[in-house]
Amino acid sequence: MSGHTLDPLLKPKSIAVIGASKDQSKWGYKVLYNILSNRYKGKVFPVNPSAQEILGKQCFPDVTSIPDEVDLGVVIVPAQAAPSVIDDCGRKGVGALCVITSGFSEVGKEGAALEEDLKKKAKAYGMRMLGPNTMGFVNRSISLNASIVPRMPYRGEISFISQSGALGLALTDWSIGSRLGLNCIISTGNKADVSEADLLEYFDQDEDTWTISMYIEGLKDGRRFIEAASKVKKPMLAIKAGVSQAGARAAASHTGSLAGSDAVYDSAFRQCGVIRVEGVEEMFDAAMAVSTQPRPEGNRVAILSNGGGMAIMASDACERRGMQVPQLNKYTRAGIARLLPAFASVKNPVDTVAKSDYHIYKEAMRALLDDKDIDCVMVIYAHAGMTDAMEPAQAVVDMLKEKYPKPVVACWMGGEDIDAVARMFRKNRVPFYPVPERAAEALRTLIEYDSSLVRKKVKR
Amino acid sequence: MSGHTLDPLLKPKSIAVIGASKDQSKWGYKVLYNILSNRYKGKVFPVNPSAQEILGKQCFPDVTSIPDEVDLGVVIVPAQAAPSVIDDCGRKGVGALCVITSGFSEVGKEGAALEEDLKKKAKAYGMRMLGPNTMGFVNRSISLNASIVPRMPYRGEISFISQSGALGLALTDWSIGSRLGLNCIISTGNKADVSEADLLEYFDQDEDTWTISMYIEGLKDGRRFIEAASKVKKPMLAIKAGVSQAGARAAASHTGSLAGSDAVYDSAFRQCGVIRVEGVEEMFDAAMAVSTQPRPEGNRVAILSNGGGMAIMASDACERRGMQVPQLNKYTRAGIARLLPAFASVKNPVDTVAKSDYHIYKEAMRALLDDKDIDCVMVIYAHAGMTDAMEPAQAVVDMLKEKYPKPVVACWMGGEDIDAVARMFRKNRVPFYPVPERAAEALRTLIEYDSSLVRKKVKR
Repeated sequence: MSGHTLDPLLKPKSIAVIGASKDQSKWGYKVLYNILSNRYKGKVFPVNPSAQEILGKQCFPDVTSIPDEVDLGVVIVPAQAAPSVIDDCGRKGVGALCVITSGFSEVGKEGAALEEDLKKKAKAYGMRMLGPNTMGFVNRSISLNASIVPRMPYRGEISFISQSGALGLALTDWSIGSRLGLNCIISTGNKADVSEADLLEYFDQDEDTWTISMYIEGLKDGRRFIEAASKVKKPMLAIKAGVSQAGARAAASHTGSLAGSDAVYDSAFRQCGVIRVEGVEEMFDAAMAVSTQPRPEGNRVAILSNGGGMAIMASDACERRGMQVPQLNKYTRAGIARLLPAFASVKNPVDTVAKSDYHIYKEAMRALLDDKDIDCVMVIYAHAGMTDAMEPAQAVVDMLKEKYPKPVVACWMGGEDIDAVARMFRKNRVPFYPVPERAAEALRTLIEYDSSLVRKKVKR
Repeated sequence: MSGHTLDPLLKPKSIAVIGASKDQSKWGYKVLYNILSNRYKGKVFPVNPSAQEILGKQCFPDVTSIPDEVDLGVVIVPAQAAPSVIDDCGRKGVGALCVITSGFSEVGKEGAALEEDLKKKAKAYGMRMLGPNTMGFVNRSISLNASIVPRMPYRGEISFISQSGALGLALTDWSIGSRLGLNCIISTGNKADVSEADLLEYFDQDEDTWTISMYIEGLKDGRRFIEAASKVKKPMLAIKAGVSQAGARAAASHTGSLAGSDAVYDSAFRQCGVIRVEGVEEMFDAAMAVSTQPRPEGNRVAILSNGGGMAIMASDACERRGMQVPQLNKYTRAGIARLLPAFASVKNPVDTVAKSDYHIYKEAMRALLDDKDIDCVMVIYAHAGMTDAMEPAQAVVDMLKEKYPKPVVACWMGGEDIDAVARMFRKNRVPFYPVPERAAEALRTLIEYDSSLVRKKVKR
């Protein structure tokens, strides 16, 4: 363990669920249920003065009566009861708090005063606090679902910090449908204590997180965010929402955020190396690539495809986005020609004319990666149901194990027939996309991210 | 029946599969299997001189020995044998041909001569011919899969004409994974006879097709295409591939297409009202909207969402794309406020603060559609697993039945939990998207398409 102050919050060994409930319609039930039903290995203590046991677990009247140490207190009591619960936690020596309870600064002045009270108490006892008004968090690396998200995401290396709780929840479900893997999903709530800046610091040292993604409506302390982000060595991506007139209006009522000048955010992000994206699809498309692939030396793309149509659309998509798809030199062409029928095209894009055996894909990729005039490779497979989609996919996985210092992205077009491929790519950290345009967009981000890192290095 | 010359091809009452095979690895087997296993109601006659029966069907030595009428001859014999098969078909009085056999103009001069021969024969006998070198076609409205696509798409109203056979196949599988519905998918092959222009004419009068989408590398007869497209009353969308240097190079070897000047295609498409898109995702996102929704009078969007984050991102996405998300007038606001808790936001975007009951969604939509200062509505539901995703979806379906003359697009963010919603939306022809940016992009196309139609009307 790293000994970070957020460890008791995000990697707790024991949890008290304060305000646990037997009523299945209540969040106090759902959160306890989610913690218990997802193979979390730590101890769990429901706290509720009017129950003996909930979900088969002995229930305690208050935190102080728990006979064991408590790392994390998950608080789901009415707002008015929250301060005394925090006091109990402090006296008990609880390590950190996740306050799901709402009715604080988001509802007006009185709530804001109550929130200030919570914050002071937590600080006095030395407890870090997520929320209040958070929808909780998920940490896939320890199988902990301390949230109201009904299902756990697939395991991945991308962590997501969300200022919108509902977005975090919906995104989890969406990520499953999109076959994406995630590590942590955190709803920051009102950010009375723990902010994006704290989480950036935490995730930068968290070995299960390779890339940090964020949904931000407004920052409370922009300077601290920039300071924290500037020190982060891992890729960061952010959606800064509320940039439009209507969006800013809505952000003000949603999280009380002053959207701020868009240009200011733009330059701040650029300065500290945060990649700005428009929406969640673009964010995770890009995150998969920057999370797992080395940075390219340049913008020269080689395309390998089993179908001409896809190869041509991919070429168009790359050139439209400012990349080059150059002719291959004669040695590379000869190397690939050996593998393919005489009528195949060994120009760039390489069209294998429907051949997609393991050997052909692997050796063609190798020839392209060996070419010193090629900086990155897009491998495409259009599933026509005549061939096994896993064969060329296995070739991609195996080539990536050889750790060429050049990025590879995959585009597998198909439906349910390529579910097994998606699973294998996710496990082996291959960035994969359903259509060539999205693969090209991810490559573009990878190339631009590279440039932004260079700027960052020069600055220091 | 309409009596179109392509009816025997695309809506045949009986089919001879010439070159049917017992060998499961052969296309002659796969195509016959696909025709027989998908509830096609017409008669099917395998033709192969060396078999008595295939797949339980009596087999005939040649087409002329079939004792019944034959609308369509699907030809899967070696290239050299094709001319005599065409002669047989002509003598038999077969209505049309789908020549899957390859080895013609796509392989060189000799093949081109053979193709010219086929074309002349077919014309002499008055048979329309798809291909050669086509991968066949699917017509979902008559449950006919005369192709090598292993699975049928969901039923929908969008027909797709593809110059790339493999793309057509992969797209079918992809459409299933993307929960899209399609009507016809046609691989045009070498276009010796039937071209995009013929298919445009056909689909314009085909009541099962509401929107025509195309993948084009190059047109053999641009003038005829423009003439045909100019007369089409249904929405048309096209990917024109091979616009980049590498793409043009690849198109030349893929379908022998001279990519032509991109600007020429651009202005030709504009002139005849074809919406140009970059890739298949963008194409079908747009097609769903233009296929089913009325044209908006202007670009003023109202947004209804159960979550603030999604509402804000949607607002940003609309304004970024040149649409307005205006304030609502006091009557509309009052109408919506009645439905919602006091702390909900009745500005535009409307944030129902997690409420998504049928009644709330339906009546809020009605208030927005009734507002004379609103031209179109985006309805958003972020699935957090706490509510039933079907309730607000049913509200959308029911509101659309009231036939307001304003377009509505839906954005349902979630995973497997919203599978049933996708099914209902597809059946009821509601355009739906997984993220707000794609819904906004579809609205933008709908608005621009409107303008292009206006231009078209003025020209005539």
